[in-house]
Parts: sequence; structure tokens; C-alpha cells
Amino acid sequence: MNNIKVSPLAPREFPELPAIVGVRLSVVAAGIKYSGRTDVWLAELAPGTVVAGVFTRSKTASAPVDWCREVISKNHPRAVLVNSGNANAFTGVAGRDAVKASATAIATRLDCQPDDVFLASTGVIGEPLPVQRITESMDALVSGLGSVGWPQSAAAIMTTDTFAKGAGVQFELDGGHGHIAGICKGSGMIEPDMGTMLGFLFTDVAIEREVLQQLLVECNESSFNSITVDSDTSTSDTVLLAATGTAGNAVIRSMGDPRIGAFRLALDDVMQDLARQIVRDGEGASKFITIDVCGAEDDRAARVIAKSIANSPLVKTAIAGEDANWGRVVMAVGKAGEQADRDRLRIRMGGIEIAANGQAVPEYDERPLDAHLRGSEIHISVDVGVGSGTARVWTCDLTEGYIRINADYRS
Amino acid sequence: MNNIKVSPLAPREFPELPAIVGVRLSVVAAGIKYSGRTDVWLAELAPGTVVAGVFTRSKTASAPVDWCREVISKNHPRAVLVNSGNANAFTGVAGRDAVKASATAIATRLDCQPDDVFLASTGVIGEPLPVQRITESMDALVSGLGSVGWPQSAAAIMTTDTFAKGAGVQFELDGGHGHIAGICKGSGMIEPDMGTMLGFLFTDVAIEREVLQQLLVECNESSFNSITVDSDTSTSDTVLLAATGTAGNAVIRSMGDPRIGAFRLALDDVMQDLARQIVRDGEGASKFITIDVCGAEDDRAARVIAKSIANSPLVKTAIAGEDANWGRVVMAVGKAGEQADRDRLRIRMGGIEIAANGQAVPEYDERPLDAHLRGSEIHISVDVGVGSGTARVWTCDLTEGYIRINADYRS
Repeated sequence: MNNIKVSPLAPREFPELPAIVGVRLSVVAAGIKYSGRTDVWLAELAPGTVVAGVFTRSKTASAPVDWCREVISKNHPRAVLVNSGNANAFTGVAGRDAVKASATAIATRLDCQPDDVFLASTGVIGEPLPVQRITESMDALVSGLGSVGWPQSAAAIMTTDTFAKGAGVQFELDGGHGHIAGICKGSGMIEPDMGTMLGFLFTDVAIEREVLQQLLVECNESSFNSITVDSDTSTSDTVLLAATGTAGNAVIRSMGDPRIGAFRLALDDVMQDLARQIVRDGEGASKFITIDVCGAEDDRAARVIAKSIANSPLVKTAIAGEDANWGRVVMAVGKAGEQADRDRLRIRMGGIEIAANGQAVPEYDERPLDAHLRGSEIHISVDVGVGSGTARVWTCDLTEGYIRINADYRS
Repeated sequence: MNNIKVSPLAPREFPELPAIVGVRLSVVAAGIKYSGRTDVWLAELAPGTVVAGVFTRSKTASAPVDWCREVISKNHPRAVLVNSGNANAFTGVAGRDAVKASATAIATRLDCQPDDVFLASTGVIGEPLPVQRITESMDALVSGLGSVGWPQSAAAIMTTDTFAKGAGVQFELDGGHGHIAGICKGSGMIEPDMGTMLGFLFTDVAIEREVLQQLLVECNESSFNSITVDSDTSTSDTVLLAATGTAGNAVIRSMGDPRIGAFRLALDDVMQDLARQIVRDGEGASKFITIDVCGAEDDRAARVIAKSIANSPLVKTAIAGEDANWGRVVMAVGKAGEQADRDRLRIRMGGIEIAANGQAVPEYDERPLDAHLRGSEIHISVDVGVGSGTARVWTCDLTEGYIRINADYRS
């Protein structure tokens, strides 16, 4: 695991992210599983911050996810604490105790209640979290607040990730500016369902919690919920969005507020950028694949079909082999179980129509198609010929690298 | 593709299958795609034979599947014609024409109607079927009837299969004997949904078509519908069961007939044997995995959970790596979306309990578990702690071999 090279699809460098007034960051190396790297991250939130969150729909959710679900509607958020190397999932009573101990250790030092602290853990499932290593690092962690930025934060929450992931934006607000900064992690066990792997977003916009929550849920649909690496949904998927209210704008109190539009566009930008970065770090990935489906019965049906294509191991291995095997796309549309008119189905790759009206397009130009498939950004577009539903999903190809990584992850 | 060795999980040899009076077999090498091997198989059925069938639920079903669905309830079955090398799927009007031409060519020679002929095709999707090669081989095919047996038949319908698959049985009936012989093919694109890949079963039992159909549907649930190789459902899945009525028994006319019991047991035996052989030939497979789920809300929920485990690439790669990574089993149970009591979940591998009551079993004996995982027959058993629903599903592991086979199948 330690010898894995950076994904060939990684961005050239970690982007410039805006600082968010009211947020201070810190990391430590607590030795939870890895040696010689940071593995605990703390974000302190200024009093008055509101937090929205979405979480995994897994029926075997981790202890930290249970904790966050419980505290999210009742607290005065003051901190987010995340560790890598251990998911604290399927750890029973010990897992719940570990969560409480971590939150209490933070609360004591930041002069708040334990349930003002959000928690997330990522790594191996089913092994007890060595929580003492976290609590023993707490003094160093708190005294380090303000000493690191986003790149160090994003690096501390990595597991099988091969690069640190961040995205940020500045937008106009009330004659001044609002800012969003986000980091996330994720590489395998990625088909976020309700929330996602771990994603943490921060903004200085002043906004009511309920409005923030609704925005997060909506933006999540077209970002983290629209990616898949391997169709496996984590026990730990968590996305938190904290708004410190330090931008100086008049508080946004409803989804009807005219300023929602710009904020939403900015949030979409950041969340989709982060989601795509997770796909770009898909275990073993050599191609980044965008799948557009149109002509479905409705948007829901379009998404089911797009996910069926994106999760098909036969489609993913064909793309890995640079093979325009659209027959496998037909198969994946068929198995999705949603309405599709076989005799009106159209399939494009790289913009070139290769199948239409129930059969192969005769004599399409293979050269530009081959060139497209040899590249690292693949575009598959399918019109299922039934209605007006559309969806866009991102995924990556399936290579021998995925097998190598996952056949010896734990050992 | 031609260099792939026989699966390490293959049976030692093709089994002895009983001859079915009223069925004559023939094969030819028509050169549809492969050179130097047979690729068309014909089974002639005696007048009076009845046929039951189940087919793919794919919304992009192949032309032969459409054909079979149309003729199954109205014909006097006289033949089954199958080709490998081309699926005749997503081939539009040309595909429908090819189906009609094949059926007519048989009908002319066997003195029956075209819709007395069942058809199936398997191979690449989306390329026009070179039907002329089939019709030109028809004289040789018909004149060869009776010259070959089950092993040659099973070999002619193979695509990426690495061994020919057959199973048969003799059972007591009305003081004499009934017989069942079946062959099938399948290796990748295997998660049969309604029917399966291609499976052809023959019996000499005298039985009404409606009763035969109901039996087939029920036995199909616990055989072909209980396997998965890669979660991809074919456009061509077809299982046909032909009963020639030559065994001499008084005709079975209802599911309440006391002789149904023995026939059903025999049919279950043969169909489950064939289904397991498909898994044993799973592309790249090195381990055969049996997954038992109990304690689910009902049998349906148990099957959803078992399939979720069986289709998880992380579970499958862990088994390939001989790693008892039961955390991934927990994940797969969780993502299935069915009720599970995380704190009562129990997981066994090779009979050894490794997780119970929401956490790892402390100090279980790792040696027998490691020995089990190094073997080629893996058993995962999960109690989800909610109700009394059970299910058994068979699958194989996911290895680099799967990627190699599928990244250059078409090219």
C-alpha cells in the first residue's frame, strides 16, 4: 500500500483555497495505523457556526456516523475531529465509547459540550479504534490550531488516496465576497449513496442551518452522489458543511433568498470538483469517465441507467483496454431495469455516434474514436429514446491495479 | 482469448449424461467468429415434446430472446438451434431477419413451422450475425443429427468458457425411470436475473407444458438466479427445458401430482450443478465462494444481502488475496439496504465465527481460518439477526485474470 504511485489522473497540484475566517486547523501524527505521517485532523469552528451534514445510508454505519446523526440538529458546533487509519465501524460498545472519549477530550479543551464536536473516522473496518492515541495527542492538536492550512488537513485524512484533495472558490455576496473551501478523501469503497466518503466544506457565509442543510442535500445529489469507483458503499460516508457567518452578509434565511443562486453555483463548483477528484484517485484508475444519459423516463431513471453503466465491470474493463465495446453499454442499459427503447437507443463515445436505431452505425470514422479512447478523459453519452430525463455520472476504469490494491490491503 | 487455460476450478471431466429418447443432436463449424471449432448446435425434438423457458429481464434483450418469448406458448416444438460467436443482440431489423431465416431453414428440413424452432445466440453484442454461414451449414447440421452426444453439444455453445458444462440424473418414476440431461455455457457477463446465460435441459418425463414451466421457474430461482460472476446481466440469458414424454409414465398434469417431488429434486440437482459450473468458470476465478445468509427479514431480503456480498468487488478481491477481511462483508451487508441488526450480526468463514454482536470475536483461532482461505472452496455465512429469511448464492473471486480477459476480449 505504501508503494502506490500517485494516480495518473491526479491534478498537477493542490489548488489555492481561500482561508475561511472562523476556522482554525491542526494536524498530528498519532500513530493510529500508519507510521511517519499525520493521521488526526482538527478543525475548530468559531461560536455561531452552523453545520449541515449528509451521511451514509449503510445499515451498518460506523460509530462516528451514528454520533454525527445524533448531534447535528441539537448542538452549537465548535469542532470537527477526523482520524484516518481506522473507521471505528462494527466496533460495538467499544466504538461508541471511543467516540464519546474523543468528543469529551476536545470539549474539555475548547470549553464546549461533547455534542458540539463532529467526528469522522476512515480506514479499516472492525478493528477497535486505539482511541488513547488520539486523546493523548489532544494537547498537541489543540495547541497547534492555526498552524496548518488546507493541504496538510487534506493529507491527514487520506487512506488509500494517492493525492490530497481540495477545492475552493470566492463569489460575490452583498457587495463583498463569500468563500467556500473544501477537502475530501476517497479512493475505494466508493459509491456514495446518501452522503459520500469524507468531505468537509467550510464557508464564511451567514446562513440559517435549515437552509444550509437543504442546499447541501441538493448539491450533494449532483456531486458526491453522482460518482462511483467500485459500487461499494462505505460505512463511514460523511459530508459536513460548516458556515461560520463571518463574511459580513445579512443572514440568508430561506431558499427563496435571491443570493441563494450565486452561493449554490459556487457550492456546486466546489463539491463537483471534489467529487471528480475522488474518481481521479479511484483505485487503479487509468481513465476518467464521464457518462451522460438522456432520453430516460425521468431524471431518476436516467441516474439508475448511468450508474448501471458506470458500475459495469465489463464496461470499465473495456475502457481500460481502449476498446469501443458499446455492446457492453447496451448490456448495462438493459440490465438497469429502467425503460429504454432498444430500437431508438443511441450511443456516442467522444462525441462520435457509434450506435443508433437498434444497430451499429455503419462506417463511422474509427480514427477519432480510437484517439479519444487512447486519451485519459473518456466521454460516453447514451440516449435511451424514451423521455426527457437526464443524468451525469463520473467513474473510472477497472484495471489490474484495482485488484492488486485490494487483494492485499489489510495484510 | 484463445490462450486462456482451463479454469483451476473446473471439474475433472465432463460427466456421464443419460441419453434422452426423442432428442437427437448435431454440431457444425460454421465459422461465425472462431476458426477451427464448432459453433452451431442443433437439438431435434420428437413430435409431442413440450418446452418451458425463462429469459433475461434485460430491457435490451437479443433478437433470439424476443423470438423465443413469442413462440414459446404457441408452438409444437421440434428443434433448438444455438450459435456461439455472435449474440445477435442490438442488431435491429437485420437481427430479426436473421432469426427468421435461421428458423425457416430448420423448418424446411424438419418439416415443421418456423415458430416450432427455438433459437439462442451468444457472443459479441452489436455485430450483425453472419446468418448465411448458418443457413449454408444447415444441410450438414441436419444430416449429422444423432452423430454427436452431450460433450460435443456443450463445447459448440462455449464462448469465453474454458470448459464444457453438463449435468444429468436418473430418478425413479412410475416403476421405471425418468432422466434429465442439461448443458449450459457462461463465464462472464453473469448475473442472471430472470433466466440466465444459455442453459438447455432435456427430460423424457411426460408432463404438461404449464406444469413444466412452473417447475422450471421455481428451480431456476435456486440455481441460475442464485449465481453471479460480475454483476453484469446478459442480453441473451435463456434457459429452455424440453420434455419429450418418452419415459412411458402417465402424464403429469398438476403441481399437486405426488411424482412432482422426485422430479423436482432431480431437476434441482441438475440445474444447481450446471449453475455452479458457470461460477467455476467465472472469468479469472481462482476461488469458488458459497454465501449463506440467514436471519433476514424474509427470503427476498436474504437474497438481496447475499447478492450484495457476492457482487462486492472488495469482498471478491479480499478472497482472491486469501484475506479474512470480514469488514468488507459488513460493508456489503450495510449497503444492501435491507434490514440488518448491526449489533447482532454474526459472520463465519469456513465455519469459524469471526464477528459477532457488533464486533470482532476476540482471539478466534486464525490457523484453521487461514487454511480455509488458502483452499479453493470458500464458505461465507452471515446471520443478520433480524428474522428468519435465508438465501444461498454462489460466486467466485475477482482477480487480475478477469481484467486481462475483459480488457481485450473484442480486440
